[in-house]
Amino acid sequence: MRIAELGRRSGVPVPTIKYYLREGLLPAGELTSPNQARYTDAHLHRLRLVRALVELGGLSIAAVRDVLGALDDPDMSLHKAMGTVSAAVAPPDVDVSDEVAHEQARAFVERQGWDCPPDSYAFKALVGVLTTAREVGQHRFVDLLDGYARACAQLAEVDLDYVLRMASKDEALEGVLLGTFLGDATVAAVRAMARREVSERHAASEG
Amino acid sequence: MRIAELGRRSGVPVPTIKYYLREGLLPAGELTSPNQARYTDAHLHRLRLVRALVELGGLSIAAVRDVLGALDDPDMSLHKAMGTVSAAVAPPDVDVSDEVAHEQARAFVERQGWDCPPDSYAFKALVGVLTTAREVGQHRFVDLLDGYARACAQLAEVDLDYVLRMASKDEALEGVLLGTFLGDATVAAVRAMARREVSERHAASEG
Repeated sequence: MRIAELGRRSGVPVPTIKYYLREGLLPAGELTSPNQARYTDAHLHRLRLVRALVELGGLSIAAVRDVLGALDDPDMSLHKAMGTVSAAVAPPDVDVSDEVAHEQARAFVERQGWDCPPDSYAFKALVGVLTTAREVGQHRFVDLLDGYARACAQLAEVDLDYVLRMASKDEALEGVLLGTFLGDATVAAVRAMARREVSERHAASEG
Repeated sequence: MRIAELGRRSGVPVPTIKYYLREGLLPAGELTSPNQARYTDAHLHRLRLVRALVELGGLSIAAVRDVLGALDDPDMSLHKAMGTVSAAVAPPDVDVSDEVAHEQARAFVERQGWDCPPDSYAFKALVGVLTTAREVGQHRFVDLLDGYARACAQLAEVDLDYVLRMASKDEALEGVLLGTFLGDATVAAVRAMARREVSERHAASEG
């Protein structure tokens, strides 16, 4: 297909596609004349992936490049790919200087028997949330964590099961990447539904 | 305290505080001279809440006003307050036109026996995620939902329990508001930790 059709089918504007081509996020098409190229379904697929990483994941171009590199590396395991994604999505500006929040996160990880280093994205993100909770006076927010841990372990098993059922390693790696972004958005949506449900049931039982 | 101290202790710049005062998000201080006012710990508390709603929740000023109105309404129940928050955080631009995704979300809600109307934020958000999953070729993503539902119901029980233990209704309402934003960020962080753990265990068991 021509670049115009690639744009139509992916929903990505042609100038943006050209930018991705220049940045190497999309392989060049096959030249059919000095200034015209042909693109395949593989390009369309990769373009949709880039779009999802940028729009859903909020990733920078450099981070997308890292993630695609992990995807294209035949020697990379699922486990390693998950680490690359986590590093790519790491927000650079989480304030982890609150010592109380840091100690709360450390004690939580230890209680769970989890092996989560303090320099990982997940650990820093948790310290950030606990810091905010303290700042806004929700001093007992930390008490939620153990309950969350059990539910999140269940979510992680569901995710792993999904990835392991995939036919090819390529597909599985992409599932891991997208699952991280899509998964967070999905959990937020399903959680909002469940809260509504639980709250309604509680309101009904009270009235 | 003077406005400068209010700024220092809340981490909100003084011009921003003045803007919030003009917009009615923060009640006026007690005038001690024609151009000087005194603020209390109640102002500091409210200001930290506004900051969290804007920074964490990404809420517009109008949405913050709605949320604070719900908080200050003595007749509002916990259940109703949760609805107000959901409406306030609703992103205006979720594309829910994909009929397959819409039907997937409807069937999911029906399977769970949940009462979640198609015009609610949570429903639209789910349709949006399922649309993206389809666009990027993750056609089996929808299979994750039932597993997510069980874990999210567990999260909702943990949240409700947290809110119900609070000493006052005011505190509980604030817990609901903040829990929505802080909770999503916390679940994302804890989920990242749990995925790492589950993936590591799986990698170890494979050799």
